Amino acid sequence: MRNYTTQMDAAKQGIITPEMKIVAKKEYRTEEEIRELVAKGQVAICANKLHTCIDPEGVGSMLRTKINVNLGVSRDCKDYDVEMKKVQAAIDMGAEAIMDLSSHGNTQPFRRKLTSECKAMIGTVPVYDSVIHYQRDLATLSAKDFIDVVRLHAQDGVDFVTLHCGITRKTIEQIKKHKRKMNIVSRGGSLVFAWMSMTGEENPFYEYFDEILDICCEYDVTISLGDACRPGCLADASDVCQIEELVRLGELTKRAWAKDVQVMVEGPGHVPLDQIEANMKIQQTICMGAPFYVLGPLVTDIAPGYDHITSAIGGAIAASAGAAFLCYVTPAEHLALPNVDDVKQGIIASRIAAHAADIAKKIPHARDIDDQMADARRTFDWEKQWEFSIDPETAKAIRDSRAPEHDDTCSMCGKFCAVRSMNKALAGEYIDIL
Amino acid sequence: MRNYTTQMDAAKQGIITPEMKIVAKKEYRTEEEIRELVAKGQVAICANKLHTCIDPEGVGSMLRTKINVNLGVSRDCKDYDVEMKKVQAAIDMGAEAIMDLSSHGNTQPFRRKLTSECKAMIGTVPVYDSVIHYQRDLATLSAKDFIDVVRLHAQDGVDFVTLHCGITRKTIEQIKKHKRKMNIVSRGGSLVFAWMSMTGEENPFYEYFDEILDICCEYDVTISLGDACRPGCLADASDVCQIEELVRLGELTKRAWAKDVQVMVEGPGHVPLDQIEANMKIQQTICMGAPFYVLGPLVTDIAPGYDHITSAIGGAIAASAGAAFLCYVTPAEHLALPNVDDVKQGIIASRIAAHAADIAKKIPHARDIDDQMADARRTFDWEKQWEFSIDPETAKAIRDSRAPEHDDTCSMCGKFCAVRSMNKALAGEYIDIL
Repeated sequence: MRNYTTQMDAAKQGIITPEMKIVAKKEYRTEEEIRELVAKGQVAICANKLHTCIDPEGVGSMLRTKINVNLGVSRDCKDYDVEMKKVQAAIDMGAEAIMDLSSHGNTQPFRRKLTSECKAMIGTVPVYDSVIHYQRDLATLSAKDFIDVVRLHAQDGVDFVTLHCGITRKTIEQIKKHKRKMNIVSRGGSLVFAWMSMTGEENPFYEYFDEILDICCEYDVTISLGDACRPGCLADASDVCQIEELVRLGELTKRAWAKDVQVMVEGPGHVPLDQIEANMKIQQTICMGAPFYVLGPLVTDIAPGYDHITSAIGGAIAASAGAAFLCYVTPAEHLALPNVDDVKQGIIASRIAAHAADIAKKIPHARDIDDQMADARRTFDWEKQWEFSIDPETAKAIRDSRAPEHDDTCSMCGKFCAVRSMNKALAGEYIDIL
Repeated sequence: MRNYTTQMDAAKQGIITPEMKIVAKKEYRTEEEIRELVAKGQVAICANKLHTCIDPEGVGSMLRTKINVNLGVSRDCKDYDVEMKKVQAAIDMGAEAIMDLSSHGNTQPFRRKLTSECKAMIGTVPVYDSVIHYQRDLATLSAKDFIDVVRLHAQDGVDFVTLHCGITRKTIEQIKKHKRKMNIVSRGGSLVFAWMSMTGEENPFYEYFDEILDICCEYDVTISLGDACRPGCLADASDVCQIEELVRLGELTKRAWAKDVQVMVEGPGHVPLDQIEANMKIQQTICMGAPFYVLGPLVTDIAPGYDHITSAIGGAIAASAGAAFLCYVTPAEHLALPNVDDVKQGIIASRIAAHAADIAKKIPHARDIDDQMADARRTFDWEKQWEFSIDPETAKAIRDSRAPEHDDTCSMCGKFCAVRSMNKALAGEYIDIL
């Protein structure tokens, strides 16, 4: 039997767990390096003891950047079969985590299906599920009700839970006083805020944090400290509401680590490009290097329909400056629940951002595939080009749809192709262009 | 009559031209500020005297980032009417410049149509057109033939010409010796290289640079100094071939300015994210603040089909670090000639990058529209949200395709909508979620 509670407990005891071994191998690190990083809280291995089919991943700024895909049914899109297809597609496309944000119907079977069938890390936001689980409106729920749902999710095998522990009754006054343009845009954060407003009580996730830690310790659930006050527009970025909450998340990180509970810290949001690096650095000092999990950041507010691109820009910069984990954003963000194609577009944009950051961070072997692609391009080896492509099907379809006259070119340049000209010139051959 | 040759000549004489006045107004600068920047070469106003329908724009790192759209027919895609439709669409979508890269058929009528009908800056690459214009193969052309095509384009009203002046016979040996993965990927650069290889002669655009300056001075054509050795893959980035050419481009910039010819300097290419800022800073010192015109940069090589995204990431970082002008990249890059939808996707991705950079650079009023969007989102004013969207049609279509049950939400969150909950909470209202 295992003689430790959480991965962090094991690491602190000097034990190298099977999960650490797998992570070490994937990341080209020694097992001892991974153990040390887990002990310090700088790497989280989100792996609920009951999620036995998991293929463990480490989340940390010095490791390969991981990506999360949000899925789950809502009242407006309630087909669980469609959602399960998206899950499989997401994992096939390389997502390391799936967050089940379902907010309609009977949520438990889907959640259990995820933790019994998926090798990806599974995350949830228990506060969403509270209303659904009890089928009672928000104001009628008690603090204990919320904590019981956290326990339920832990028992269902969830690897990490987003909990908005960082806002308190003081936040209510601050949000009112500070007059943010977008107030709170975190769904879970707004529910906690709404509950506090209506009941007059303190945030249960803050007040009963120790009980939550006991649950998380028992099952090895990683707490993803939600940022209720993440900016919802550029104008609100890096303001006092956001930074004060971050300070509280730093305090809570310490309390969690003291009980051997693994932590990730969630971050913004909508952030001007020139503030992203500062946000990453501040988080790393305030939260002592705990893995930073960012949503976006979106570098402009004016591109609905293209927010996978605005967040790929922000995500690449964030990850290269220290973020460890990117939550995907789809073209449907701000507009609708993503469909299957939106999910695909969102994942690919996130993977591009993560990969670009990994190269910039000099993650071991990250650039190997780029170098192989360059070789394939120079030699006009189209089959190999597809093989090294992030989405072979799409790349091949574009070329095939406009097939060129000459096979050693593409229709973009034809015989003006620079690669063709250079190959001939360097071989001392005559270069025909017409 | 005008008592100056080029915008730069006027600026040096202390004359404020009508074009400077328009640029000053667009950029929220004084006319005197713009004049000074043009005199110093830090802003280029690309406006051929014969392109009378132009709506002038300034290109400079302290001004709003401009974007260029490459169009033109090739042997594999030869329909000029289709191409003209792309031109109009590009201008409607906010492109400030169109480069006509046609490499097939009778190129002059299309080029003249552009400079007589389009308000955007028009650029060309005369070396492409040389082969086509004379209908003779590359090796048979003389240095004079190339210079004559530059003159022809100037007479046709072209505002800026890309000339690969920076490679010399020395480059041939260097490219061979240095063993780059992708050698030269600049189309024009490879043609110049091929011509030098086959004829044994020096680069005509370097050897006859003074004659070219005389032509450019006469018509006020801006020289866009092409970077033949821009890296074609991450492995080749910032290498000695690239940087040595940049040094030569700096020397040529000085020579051009001495004859009052405006200059832009072209830049990479494929560049790892962590090298982009350094590339921008080096260019600014070596080329004394001449506007930097970048293609990409693409931050990974493995995303054919999505290179509008890889270059939006690089472009946003480049522009925020000093690039003035972004050449769009479409999803068809490396694969095929872009179709109408590819052009659209490329333009929008570039505009997102440029706008994100403008906000980061604190270009006056750049963020106003983002703030207006935030207000529209908080108040659920969907009509205003479309108005402030970079592509209203696409945004509206996504929402409409999955219309929500409640009009004060979207189908992404339904009644779990954070904005809705917060508006109710702050108004002291009861928040129903179920």
